[in-house]
Amino acid sequence: MGTTVSVLGLGQMGATLARTLRTAGHSTTVWNRTPGRADQLVEQGAVAVESAAAAVTASPLVLVCLATYDAVREALGPLTAELSGRTVVNLTSGSPPHARETATWAVQHGAVYLDGVIMTTPDGIGTSHALLLCSGPPTVFEAARTVLATLGDPVYLGTDPALASVYDTALLGLMWGTLTGWLHAVALIGADGPGGRGSATHFTAVADRWLTTVRSFMNTYAAQVDAGQYPAEGFDLRLHQHTMEILAHASELRGISPLLPDLLRELTGRAVAAGHGDDSYARLVEFLRLPKDGGPR
Amino acid sequence: MGTTVSVLGLGQMGATLARTLRTAGHSTTVWNRTPGRADQLVEQGAVAVESAAAAVTASPLVLVCLATYDAVREALGPLTAELSGRTVVNLTSGSPPHARETATWAVQHGAVYLDGVIMTTPDGIGTSHALLLCSGPPTVFEAARTVLATLGDPVYLGTDPALASVYDTALLGLMWGTLTGWLHAVALIGADGPGGRGSATHFTAVADRWLTTVRSFMNTYAAQVDAGQYPAEGFDLRLHQHTMEILAHASELRGISPLLPDLLRELTGRAVAAGHGDDSYARLVEFLRLPKDGGPR
Ligand SMILES: NC(=O)c1ccc[n+]([C@@H]2O[C@H](COP(=O)([O-])OP(=O)(O)OC[C@H]3O[C@@H](n4cnc5c(N)ncnc54)[C@H](OP(=O)(O)O)[C@@H]3O)[C@@H](O)[C@H]2O)c1
Ligand SMILES: NC(=O)c1ccc[n+]([C@@H]2O[C@H](COP(=O)([O-])OP(=O)(O)OC[C@H]3O[C@@H](n4cnc5c(N)ncnc54)[C@H](OP(=O)(O)O)[C@@H]3O)[C@@H](O)[C@H]2O)c1
Repeated sequence: MGTTVSVLGLGQMGATLARTLRTAGHSTTVWNRTPGRADQLVEQGAVAVESAAAAVTASPLVLVCLATYDAVREALGPLTAELSGRTVVNLTSGSPPHARETATWAVQHGAVYLDGVIMTTPDGIGTSHALLLCSGPPTVFEAARTVLATLGDPVYLGTDPALASVYDTALLGLMWGTLTGWLHAVALIGADGPGGRGSATHFTAVADRWLTTVRSFMNTYAAQVDAGQYPAEGFDLRLHQHTMEILAHASELRGISPLLPDLLRELTGRAVAAGHGDDSYARLVEFLRLPKDGGPR
Repeated sequence: MGTTVSVLGLGQMGATLARTLRTAGHSTTVWNRTPGRADQLVEQGAVAVESAAAAVTASPLVLVCLATYDAVREALGPLTAELSGRTVVNLTSGSPPHARETATWAVQHGAVYLDGVIMTTPDGIGTSHALLLCSGPPTVFEAARTVLATLGDPVYLGTDPALASVYDTALLGLMWGTLTGWLHAVALIGADGPGGRGSATHFTAVADRWLTTVRSFMNTYAAQVDAGQYPAEGFDLRLHQHTMEILAHASELRGISPLLPDLLRELTGRAVAAGHGDDSYARLVEFLRLPKDGGPR
């Protein structure tokens, strides 16, 4: 009773959240389904309780960080009376439809509900790089902001509770694109051991700096996507297409998978074939949106 | 006669190089195949000459920036006598085999040859973000370094003259992976106009910050690739696989191309099927190297 914040779920992420809240001086109640996970936190001054119901009623602000949305519904499902009037920030990752359903369910039982996604691994918690994406009522975000700010950098996305999950999914897509492009590059330069010019570490020092330039392209292209205009300023799809052939050929010569070069050539080839060879790379967004009525939008 | 540096090729990039060298105060001779491209540079104090031969003999350091390696061989081919004793830095982009052939050819004719690649668009020239990747004899790099440093940030990669092209190709692969992942993300959040939470610009402000975290993963994974050990520390391939399904499903729901999600699931699926579900994303590098003898290396 009488703590500032409760944390439900003491897995890798939840335990890190609770520890960080304690370090920041917030009085904290914690709960985990399987007992024994709270011992170290109790030493650090957290209050451990034996039921989710006790955790929900202990604090006005309830952070939930379980494995899945199904786990959230299983843990909170029976607590309809306890939830009434509480502010629940659900930091469990999942799909956009699950986020929307859970928001609707929580509101039906009188809770105020914010959906959140943690965009870092536990070792990033408590740093300013840790984006905490939030969506739901803006007043709830404002109420939770100070506590969330001890865990990372809270970013408010909008009222639709599914937005945090949509951004999560989209940002993971960006991460996989980046990491897959990087791994392909690492394979291509022949990295197969530490030290020397062919090491992944050596290449990555250059790649990391190159990403500063890639980010500047990305920001230029974002404005182009919004405007629906794709001026190439010398770096056009035909030039990309030509250099993608070099990538494909170099990959083949070195015994590297054609998966990524093939995808790039396929997508760029479609855009050039449709007459967009003079446009910038950003034009490809129109070839990622599938035609609704027989042609690229 | 008697200038510090000559620039052969006054296309978009070559003209920018020459202008930047003049702004930095280097006495500069310029040449372009088609006349008339030098007029503005002459106003800025450059010396224009009418043949490639005159440009090559005007300065000890000769920068070449033509459309392709074929153009380089066409322009320099007849100048075997003039090239002797000159330092040629070839900033033309192309494939690794072309770079190696051109280096061999130049050295046969008595030139000292450095291969270079410019990793930016013309508007980045003269900034510290402009990576100028160089490979060839280290002494040539040291001799050219001061002049190159006025154009960007010269990075020496090693003695094999093809290295700059290999890095170029690999880094472009990283760029395409990143930009394609980003465009997929932009399509997924439903960006279709400026302003509002669904705009590409709004999303990209978050994506740009997220890339700081992605870069930190990349650096962690580089050491893993070099070590051939891929500890996941909670962010394992099984979790990636699960979230990739969410990406695939969300993409399908919103009418976004399955190209990228399919590639990611294919690659990750192979690694998990081979028993690497507990490893980090970096393990996938082994599934990008094609088997030489019947199984992934
Ligand atoms: N770890 C990361 O790097 C990371 C990064 C970003 C986001 N996230 C997200 O954060 C959330 C938690 O991740 P994690 O790494 O902490 O996972 P974890 O270490 O596997 O912990 C899972 C937690 O969920 C609890 N749980 C599972 N099913 C339950 C149920 N039916 N009822 C009650 N509790 C249940 C577990 O309790 P028991 O101890 O009783 O099993 C445990 O506390 C996930 O949504 C994850 O996607 C994690
Ligand atoms: N622009 C960029 O954003 C960028 C970025 C990084 C790297 N690069 C690389 O920089 C190099 C130059 O690019 P650019 O943008 O300056 O190209 P560009 O604007 O198309 O200019 C091409 C230049 O090559 C010359 N040329 C072509 N064929 C020739 C031949 N057979 N003999 C003599 N000269 C010939 C052209 O002369 P004419 O005027 O007589 O046709 C012109 O000076 C390329 O390798 C490109 O990949 C460019």
